[in-house]
Amino acid sequence: MYRSHTNGELNAKNINEEVTLSGWVHKIRNKGFMVWVDLRDRYGITQLIFDEERTPSEMMKLASTLGREFVIQITGKVIERESKNPNIPTGDIEILVNNLTILNEALTPPFTIENETDGGEDLRMKYRYLDIRRKSVRENLVFRHKVTIAVRNYLSNKDFVEIETPYLIKSTPEGARDFVVPSRMNEGQFYALPQSPQTFKQLLMVGGMDKYFQIVKCFRDEDLRADRQPEFTQIDCEMAFVEQEDILNTFEGLTRYLLKEVNGVEIGDFPRMTYDDAMATYGNDKPDIRFGMKFAELNNLTQHKEFNVFNNAELVVGIAVPGGNSYTRKEIDKLIDWVRRPQVGALGMVYCRCNDDGSFKSSVDKFYDQEDLAKWAEATGANKGDLICILSGDTNKVRAQLSALRMELAERLGLRKPGEFAPLWVVDFPLLELDEETGHYHAMHHPFTSPKPGQLELLDTNPGAVKANAYDLVLNGNEIGGGSIRIHDKNTQGVMLKHLGFSEEEAKAQFGFLMDAFEYGAPPHGGIAFGLDRLVAILGGQETIRDFIAFPKNNAGRDVMIDAPAFIDDEQLKELNIKLDIQA
Amino acid sequence: MYRSHTNGELNAKNINEEVTLSGWVHKIRNKGFMVWVDLRDRYGITQLIFDEERTPSEMMKLASTLGREFVIQITGKVIERESKNPNIPTGDIEILVNNLTILNEALTPPFTIENETDGGEDLRMKYRYLDIRRKSVRENLVFRHKVTIAVRNYLSNKDFVEIETPYLIKSTPEGARDFVVPSRMNEGQFYALPQSPQTFKQLLMVGGMDKYFQIVKCFRDEDLRADRQPEFTQIDCEMAFVEQEDILNTFEGLTRYLLKEVNGVEIGDFPRMTYDDAMATYGNDKPDIRFGMKFAELNNLTQHKEFNVFNNAELVVGIAVPGGNSYTRKEIDKLIDWVRRPQVGALGMVYCRCNDDGSFKSSVDKFYDQEDLAKWAEATGANKGDLICILSGDTNKVRAQLSALRMELAERLGLRKPGEFAPLWVVDFPLLELDEETGHYHAMHHPFTSPKPGQLELLDTNPGAVKANAYDLVLNGNEIGGGSIRIHDKNTQGVMLKHLGFSEEEAKAQFGFLMDAFEYGAPPHGGIAFGLDRLVAILGGQETIRDFIAFPKNNAGRDVMIDAPAFIDDEQLKELNIKLDIQA
Repeated sequence: MYRSHTNGELNAKNINEEVTLSGWVHKIRNKGFMVWVDLRDRYGITQLIFDEERTPSEMMKLASTLGREFVIQITGKVIERESKNPNIPTGDIEILVNNLTILNEALTPPFTIENETDGGEDLRMKYRYLDIRRKSVRENLVFRHKVTIAVRNYLSNKDFVEIETPYLIKSTPEGARDFVVPSRMNEGQFYALPQSPQTFKQLLMVGGMDKYFQIVKCFRDEDLRADRQPEFTQIDCEMAFVEQEDILNTFEGLTRYLLKEVNGVEIGDFPRMTYDDAMATYGNDKPDIRFGMKFAELNNLTQHKEFNVFNNAELVVGIAVPGGNSYTRKEIDKLIDWVRRPQVGALGMVYCRCNDDGSFKSSVDKFYDQEDLAKWAEATGANKGDLICILSGDTNKVRAQLSALRMELAERLGLRKPGEFAPLWVVDFPLLELDEETGHYHAMHHPFTSPKPGQLELLDTNPGAVKANAYDLVLNGNEIGGGSIRIHDKNTQGVMLKHLGFSEEEAKAQFGFLMDAFEYGAPPHGGIAFGLDRLVAILGGQETIRDFIAFPKNNAGRDVMIDAPAFIDDEQLKELNIKLDIQA
Repeated sequence: MYRSHTNGELNAKNINEEVTLSGWVHKIRNKGFMVWVDLRDRYGITQLIFDEERTPSEMMKLASTLGREFVIQITGKVIERESKNPNIPTGDIEILVNNLTILNEALTPPFTIENETDGGEDLRMKYRYLDIRRKSVRENLVFRHKVTIAVRNYLSNKDFVEIETPYLIKSTPEGARDFVVPSRMNEGQFYALPQSPQTFKQLLMVGGMDKYFQIVKCFRDEDLRADRQPEFTQIDCEMAFVEQEDILNTFEGLTRYLLKEVNGVEIGDFPRMTYDDAMATYGNDKPDIRFGMKFAELNNLTQHKEFNVFNNAELVVGIAVPGGNSYTRKEIDKLIDWVRRPQVGALGMVYCRCNDDGSFKSSVDKFYDQEDLAKWAEATGANKGDLICILSGDTNKVRAQLSALRMELAERLGLRKPGEFAPLWVVDFPLLELDEETGHYHAMHHPFTSPKPGQLELLDTNPGAVKANAYDLVLNGNEIGGGSIRIHDKNTQGVMLKHLGFSEEEAKAQFGFLMDAFEYGAPPHGGIAFGLDRLVAILGGQETIRDFIAFPKNNAGRDVMIDAPAFIDDEQLKELNIKLDIQA
């Protein structure tokens, strides 16, 4: 037996007990006649003491050979510590060692195993197994486990059944690129890894499983942006005989439970907002509502003077920055530079200071008088001491720009508080989205989403105006879940696929099995999927998903620790009936 | 709202309530003036009644248009049933319908949605979503969910952390064939799908996670035998600072918990048996010990006469078949034919009847007298009325043959009782196994398994004799789990890989990251993995894993429902920098 206790559990109650402990040498303090070692494992740190007068001399000698991260086993007696450490549970005691065994030596690690490490991202990823020894990373992984077990038990208690769907499925041209898997046994054919279990969960509803969930890996072969992973985890859910209201209530319940169980935060009914309102009020379909700075559309209050920048704009829109009048001219100029950066893309920014004496001072005083500016302040809700920031231009662009500014300012002002949680349902999403490049419409959620009742006809005349039974759950400015009520009859699904540009043959080849299934008694159904990586990060008060994944890949889709992907044998290629096709 | 109740919950307490129900039309009985419908969902069946005198006439009319598997919604009043059905929880009541809505029509299903269906395997798989509507399949999936949630909660309560390991990893030539995934972003390179998370879970131990588990999909591109799937699910576990005894106790605890929780069966300490004993006593490393028929080695009692078949045999071994003396001569001849089938491969079988009067009658009476035969009976434990069956030949072959016969006879005699559970630890497996084709040794468990202390040296002189710290958990004649204590130092791992035929470069390229990790303070560790598909089937009292998988593949690795694998676009191949290489 390697240990009688872990390194997190001994305290004053155990004094005088003989114990056996194992773990890693976290720190060593060697005074010659005495050696202190902090012994670490997942559960905590226990102080060991080797004392010339009380520890056998060969053990004293061995102790002085220890290095950081050596794996050791000791036996000894629990004694009271002279200088207690109130910061750790084992801080009242130490172990007077009488026997030491070195279980494994260790090279000096390439970075320090501390919360604040000296290792850069690349080094930490290459030696991820050492990175995981750091308390902060380890606690993130344990936190993730706590979230998933809470999700599973909550849903299971609500009669949901976790059902595994297959990973080796069929490639569909819709959506992102598939990862594919050549089939050795079916020459020239390929499996695809699922982008989501969407069609399978719908088939489970046709199959009468009624309430399904699964915590499941999904795969997308996309060009990776920062903080995107080619493999990611979803909490995937589907229910039969439900309307949107049933789904919202069920998963609001789950989210409330998690916030209570995992974060100890009680939240009442989640607010709801239409997609159109979210775009108008926050310029964004996943607004962070922990703070205000709501958009005020100012067309009526700005387009009556000679200022052509505003007069020619489709939208003039402003926000009030609390306390922003304290910014110096230089600081405001920097803000203007910020919105002009290519990542944001505004051409400029009009501002208006709200002075403490009730007067206003704007960058467009030439055109607007105090009365005009007072109306702007009223519309944006600006108080004395605030700063009004106004952008103008094409509606979609200017909303995105002002949203970016709003988030940036909130970050600077400390309004995005990690311990505060503000969930929000965004509902009534458009069914279709115009691809500006191709001029084609594609499904905003996915091709299985049902239009709102009575709107199917609009598809021909005004496709962009059709609203869907689709909803997102937003938490602190992040989309943590999204779903829809599905189409459940073959005809509607056919119309939908036609509008998305599928020929009848393509529709049959790709989704024939689903449309066939709809003919054998498909119940009304709908569902939702949560991005687990992001959900866990946000519940954990952070925004970097990589810190909540045990073995993440880098932005080139590589695992730098195991060095994958890699070249494979010609023999292997041959068996799979493929060869490389590389342009020199 | 589609329903106020499910179809499994209404009973006499609800009489006179107005309810709304939804579900599938399971059965219809139409008497003209009255129509009865069995309405089905996952939760049960509720009887609906449409009555000329009490149901609106347009609803009566609509009811007569219903067909099997139509999806409907009704409102009505719960009334007492005249002829009660004590077999179902809702059997005391029925619903007097006043409103009926057809939510979706249904084509006549290609097979009946009953436990005993008229659909063959192929048809059931093509329409798996209809197959799942059958109570037996549905209950298997719910059962599987119950097992997994019990596993997760048990392990979680024991401080295990479920950690997701990556699916896109690196191909290794060891073991079975990998499924590979071409990387678009890394030209000419491939990911591999994991055959198991073995190296990752070991790295998690090096990373100090201490107790890991994961219920995880694994992939093997093997030529499929009956009841093998290219993707399968493991309960994968690993612990640090453990010896074999710790692992055995922990997972005996888990298995005992499952048997109690899921099957309501209490089992005491699991027996243990060495691999050598299992082979000698049952001819098999996964013996079904629900019944006896233990092997008796009869060399000493048979090789003293003129019967050269026995005299020339490496092993003469027999079993006593309880009550087997009742077999007719014809039946025994059939048994002899059975062991001679190519799948078993015996050349013949010697038998000996144990008559009720204490006399014996054998097929080799020419060579052996009553005294000899009495000794055989004593050795095999045969009583009056039994039949002794004896095979002879090469030890390994004859053991496998007699084991097959033992299982076949037990099956015929009804000794393999589904409700009875007999777990068994088989320990002290050989480290290496000789591949008879190539003459090379390969790892019996895997290359990371540690040899028993002090046996490393034997590798050079007698590799087949080296025993490993490896163990299997056997349940009712099936291996449900297997694992080992791992090597945790670089040198031993290097020696092991060398013995398995890896050059130093190959070892570094494939497992360098693991061996590097061993240099940075690797703790002693070990683990186990359970085959979830099989475990669930056996706990469910069945042996066909396919019935416990929602969407299984057939023996050619195809999903016949979605028709995968399939050909993919040339465009897609091009992006992946591969082309097909098919011999015409």
